[in-house]
Amino acid sequence: MYEVPDGYQQEFQDKYGVRTDLAIEAHEVIVEREGPPEIPGVIIENEHTEHANICRVTIESELGAKMMGKMPGHYSTIEAQALRQHNRDIHQEIGGLLANEIKWFIEQSGLGPEAVILVVGLGNWNATPDALGPKVVGELMVTRHLIQLSPPELRKGLRPIAAIAPGVLGLTGIETGEIIRGIVGEVKADAVICIDALASRSINRLCSTIQISDTGINPGSGVGNKRMVINQETLGIPVLAIGVPTVVHASTIVSDALDIIGGEDPERKLQAEEMPQKTSFAVDPQAIMGSAAQPNADATTAQTAPGAMSREQKRQMINQVLEPYMGSLIVTPKEIDELINDVANVIAGGLNSAFHEGVDYDEIFKYLS
Amino acid sequence: MYEVPDGYQQEFQDKYGVRTDLAIEAHEVIVEREGPPEIPGVIIENEHTEHANICRVTIESELGAKMMGKMPGHYSTIEAQALRQHNRDIHQEIGGLLANEIKWFIEQSGLGPEAVILVVGLGNWNATPDALGPKVVGELMVTRHLIQLSPPELRKGLRPIAAIAPGVLGLTGIETGEIIRGIVGEVKADAVICIDALASRSINRLCSTIQISDTGINPGSGVGNKRMVINQETLGIPVLAIGVPTVVHASTIVSDALDIIGGEDPERKLQAEEMPQKTSFAVDPQAIMGSAAQPNADATTAQTAPGAMSREQKRQMINQVLEPYMGSLIVTPKEIDELINDVANVIAGGLNSAFHEGVDYDEIFKYLS
Amino acid sequence: MYEVPDGYQQEFQDKYGVRTDLAIEAHEVIVEREGPPEIPGVIIENEHTEHANICRVTIESELGAKMMGKMPGHYSTIEAQALRQHNRDIHQEIGGLLANEIKWFIEQSGLGPEAVILVVGLGNWNATPDALGPKVVGELMVTRHLIQLSPPELRKGLRPIAAIAPGVLGLTGIETGEIIRGIVGEVKADAVICIDALASRSINRLCSTIQISDTGINPGSGVGNKRMVINQETLGIPVLAIGVPTVVHASTIVSDALDIIGGEDPERKLQAEEMPQKTSFAVDPQAIMGSAAQPNADATTAQTAPGAMSREQKRQMINQVLEPYMGSLIVTPKEIDELINDVANVIAGGLNSAFHEGVDYDEIFKYLS
Amino acid sequence: MYEVPDGYQQEFQDKYGVRTDLAIEAHEVIVEREGPPEIPGVIIENEHTEHANICRVTIESELGAKMMGKMPGHYSTIEAQALRQHNRDIHQEIGGLLANEIKWFIEQSGLGPEAVILVVGLGNWNATPDALGPKVVGELMVTRHLIQLSPPELRKGLRPIAAIAPGVLGLTGIETGEIIRGIVGEVKADAVICIDALASRSINRLCSTIQISDTGINPGSGVGNKRMVINQETLGIPVLAIGVPTVVHASTIVSDALDIIGGEDPERKLQAEEMPQKTSFAVDPQAIMGSAAQPNADATTAQTAPGAMSREQKRQMINQVLEPYMGSLIVTPKEIDELINDVANVIAGGLNSAFHEGVDYDEIFKYLS
Repeated sequence: MYEVPDGYQQEFQDKYGVRTDLAIEAHEVIVEREGPPEIPGVIIENEHTEHANICRVTIESELGAKMMGKMPGHYSTIEAQALRQHNRDIHQEIGGLLANEIKWFIEQSGLGPEAVILVVGLGNWNATPDALGPKVVGELMVTRHLIQLSPPELRKGLRPIAAIAPGVLGLTGIETGEIIRGIVGEVKADAVICIDALASRSINRLCSTIQISDTGINPGSGVGNKRMVINQETLGIPVLAIGVPTVVHASTIVSDALDIIGGEDPERKLQAEEMPQKTSFAVDPQAIMGSAAQPNADATTAQTAPGAMSREQKRQMINQVLEPYMGSLIVTPKEIDELINDVANVIAGGLNSAFHEGVDYDEIFKYLS
Repeated sequence: MYEVPDGYQQEFQDKYGVRTDLAIEAHEVIVEREGPPEIPGVIIENEHTEHANICRVTIESELGAKMMGKMPGHYSTIEAQALRQHNRDIHQEIGGLLANEIKWFIEQSGLGPEAVILVVGLGNWNATPDALGPKVVGELMVTRHLIQLSPPELRKGLRPIAAIAPGVLGLTGIETGEIIRGIVGEVKADAVICIDALASRSINRLCSTIQISDTGINPGSGVGNKRMVINQETLGIPVLAIGVPTVVHASTIVSDALDIIGGEDPERKLQAEEMPQKTSFAVDPQAIMGSAAQPNADATTAQTAPGAMSREQKRQMINQVLEPYMGSLIVTPKEIDELINDVANVIAGGLNSAFHEGVDYDEIFKYLS
Repeated sequence: MYEVPDGYQQEFQDKYGVRTDLAIEAHEVIVEREGPPEIPGVIIENEHTEHANICRVTIESELGAKMMGKMPGHYSTIEAQALRQHNRDIHQEIGGLLANEIKWFIEQSGLGPEAVILVVGLGNWNATPDALGPKVVGELMVTRHLIQLSPPELRKGLRPIAAIAPGVLGLTGIETGEIIRGIVGEVKADAVICIDALASRSINRLCSTIQISDTGINPGSGVGNKRMVINQETLGIPVLAIGVPTVVHASTIVSDALDIIGGEDPERKLQAEEMPQKTSFAVDPQAIMGSAAQPNADATTAQTAPGAMSREQKRQMINQVLEPYMGSLIVTPKEIDELINDVANVIAGGLNSAFHEGVDYDEIFKYLS
Repeated sequence: MYEVPDGYQQEFQDKYGVRTDLAIEAHEVIVEREGPPEIPGVIIENEHTEHANICRVTIESELGAKMMGKMPGHYSTIEAQALRQHNRDIHQEIGGLLANEIKWFIEQSGLGPEAVILVVGLGNWNATPDALGPKVVGELMVTRHLIQLSPPELRKGLRPIAAIAPGVLGLTGIETGEIIRGIVGEVKADAVICIDALASRSINRLCSTIQISDTGINPGSGVGNKRMVINQETLGIPVLAIGVPTVVHASTIVSDALDIIGGEDPERKLQAEEMPQKTSFAVDPQAIMGSAAQPNADATTAQTAPGAMSREQKRQMINQVLEPYMGSLIVTPKEIDELINDVANVIAGGLNSAFHEGVDYDEIFKYLS
């Protein structure tokens, strides 16, 4: 339908063997593999709170976008392991941090206080790890219809919010992007905010990271399958995407395993922190492989040495492990249902608070319903 | 948004004190109250099968529409008490009857075999009696996306079907009609079929009657609240509506009670059949009331005699019983969840069979997914 | 299975034509019909807060039980129209009032801080008005399994709570009472708290009243059908029942309508407050009926005068309106799904707070999971 | 609670690094690793139909049980890749095969036609891959309560079936085994049939294999966590377990990856068929590793050569990939919701058909409800 600009993501994936929807992870991969953390046209800014790190990535240049495998734009990432604890106080705090980021994006987009925002819960409510979007929509304070009916003096500061969880292609026969574009036209929305379950590279980030970006949703990202881009270009209005990794692709896990045994640690940074002395590494890949320690390994051997396992060879090995499902296999924690409920609460709370600042929702609700 | 032509329905309701979404019931009411069954511009045709009666009402004239409180057009009604039995064979048979009616309407609309049909499940999946539409959509064979991907030789006879259950105004902040119109434009649908839970006048028809009409969905009808008309005029394409009464308005029940005691039997026909001798009527309203038998009742008294209870008086009495909910109170059988599951199955079966005639769905599905 | 002592409820129902699961309503009916509010062996105590009235009914004598159609015991009723508003602050306040009542009942039952309590969510999660119990159970802080695993120093003040929503007879083939008794024996529960959706007589009380009693659940009460008593006698341990009216039986509505036209106001008290001058009553039943105003109405007429409509006549009229469903028809507001979600939150909050007083649940949860 | 005899499963897992709930897979692993397919006290019987293979494993001796890591008893496995196709005809056929196996087990258990069977849907309805059991229970024809009410002449051949989906430990605070034992005692059940989602070793078997066994449910098996054994010993009556693998443990996937690179093909048989000439193997682990081909590799190197990677080393590597979730990470296809719905239909169909042979359920249902 549209020319799909996801070449970048695929290129990145092919180059590094890593599938991730998080800009912060793409950055990490490059730094790990390519060395010093200077990527041209990519700006990183970090902020720390008691329970969270906020990392803001700005991709300014085409080159940066190409290297990162992500569209140019802003990516805010809230990392909080505490999201996985069932602690309401901390959840509320993180919801507040999220609200701040959302407000920043709304301001950036130049949306006034009466702009109509359509929130879209992407994903499949029948498949737990993909149900994040519909769950958030179910907890949202929807106000567009109330505002149309309410007296002007009550509308002050209350933003008109509409919401929909349209379901996935397999259930509707319609690309989600088409449904959104149709509704956007009807309700004359000024912006769209999509909520989606993402795939991360790192198990560690499952349900503990929230990414907000102004680059929209790209095909092939997320837990489900999407073919149509949902962004400012295709919809004609700003598109904010809020995503939480709920799965890791099985191919990522297998790739990690191959890397470990091949001597490439999939999470070098972590390792560096936790295991300062290489010699104390419990499982020494070199020792296991044997070969790398061989000083007289000739050039031919070196070509096929573990570290140099070709991309094609690796791809084939991954295929071999994951047949017959390959692409569609996902890894998720058993307790994903509880984790998703908690993080959906946090996102809905963040959105409600960002949208209806300083307005007593209960008041107007009481009046109107 | 649109000028809402529901004056007819309201007028009918005010005149007869009866709220019904079924044309067949509107007709019954008029015949009961006004006498001989000749309504100008209204044609009735009946057909009987072992387990069902099919009644086809055509409203041809403006006058007929006004009298019936229903838009001009065709209304097919399948009445089958067996729908309430948990008998799969009979359900399948009724599904076949429904498929025939749907096919007739599709032909009438001049839709070719490759016309795109959008099925819309109206209603609220969180409220059992209003969940009929979403349930039907969940069981539909959706093919539009498959057909776009499949080789031409496989497309033969397979109709492109899309489907959505958009949720109700309170959850989305958007009129359902707006959502549908937006999607219709995007997918270039050639027709819309809406599935909705209806309100009937008669308890006897709950979950035992299916109405198919080409007049669309009117505001104020159905179990939920709607304000925007969904019909050919507002969408620009044919709109078929399939509805099943799942509730009776509480005001209808109360009105019936008042009528009984006032001597007006709410279902005169039934009474006529079952109680040929007025004197053998178990509960004689006249005897109870006493007054009507009084020969010396003067004119003033007569004005307010039970039979002559004014519409306004009746309305006030109904209000008195139903405060503080009044309009929103519905009457439904306890076992509504099972009844709705069964009838949703029948409707989904009827639609699937009408859409993909003579095509082995499994075949194409196997090939494509 | 057990000798079912529901004769009282049936007797009351036959006598007054009123079906209610609320002790407070039974009391009202008697006062309305029989006059001065002195029922032997029945003690009433009222307390008022900003948003709620708490009414505590104690039935001390067999005679009082017989008159009230309710088992002897304590009934606390929290009435709060604010429960129907979507206002979290007020909901939290009412949850606190509920917690106080629950704590009183727990103390009365002589349960120590380490007593195991089994919470049972009665009802059918597939039928919205009957889903209250399962919804409450879904939001409960269940701790029994955590306490068994936790170090003694963390157990302090944390009560072992187990919970189940067993589903209804039609889904399990087993009486709910049997399931509970089986589990009680296994987990050595010291008390059972049942949560159930009730039927009230008054529409006004739907989702705005919470009843807590120590008399258990009786057959025939609630929204669903029950045949086995669930109380201290059948389970051998204290049984607390928390119920909220979510439906009114359709027969009650019809009966009210018949009473109104017959001159018996179903809610005399309300009328007395709102319409001090009889002559200003918008719809004067007497005027409508005519008969009662007739001074020369003889004794025979009086017998069948509206006010004296016999129970049997009334029963037949109700049947006539509600055929073919009769007993199983329920009246409920359209927006019942939202009302139930709110009240389920309030009850779960009240239970959690009553159970785990002064304990930081998050703390122990963090430690254990 | 009970002495848990799951030492065998753990031992097997430690020895082979394979976690599987399927006897057929345990057998495969041993044959792959240990050579010729003769395990003392283990009898294998195969049967082929058009769309399925049925493999019946009998473990007769303690030694066989120890080697297989499975309790002594009968295991029937229906393997049918067609289960993953959305083809109703084939599903019905497989349901028939399942019914035959179930009938054999019922006969073996000496259960008469009037024996009460309690079907238990294990697992968590909130987590899609673990929801198999509850879904099957939801589609079961439950009859125990009908039979108690029906006249003797209608009971003929109709078996009294009860069912429950009790929910998981985290939701109830009660071991599922305790709940079952309590209910079994109350309803005087003569046998229990548990339905559970399993973990397989092979991705290939996800949702395409059904195992029926008479050895009950062991702790640590299945998708969720269980601690209490559910078998004839703990319940006192025969326990049939029907399971379908819906997940593979992430650790299995990683282990497979490590084996591949280490030269141990996780599915040697497949490889043997598909790649007869070792030299044509697309990815030659030896070539990649280099070391194994080194003729002068000394003994020390050999010890840590890939093929000889110690169990402990492998375990540590797996941990490294799967931190911080490790044990709880599961691999599942994205479309798991549809696959589970289909297989739940097949199992419910098989059970209904096995239970109520030659009885027209609709007939009795019509009569009774």
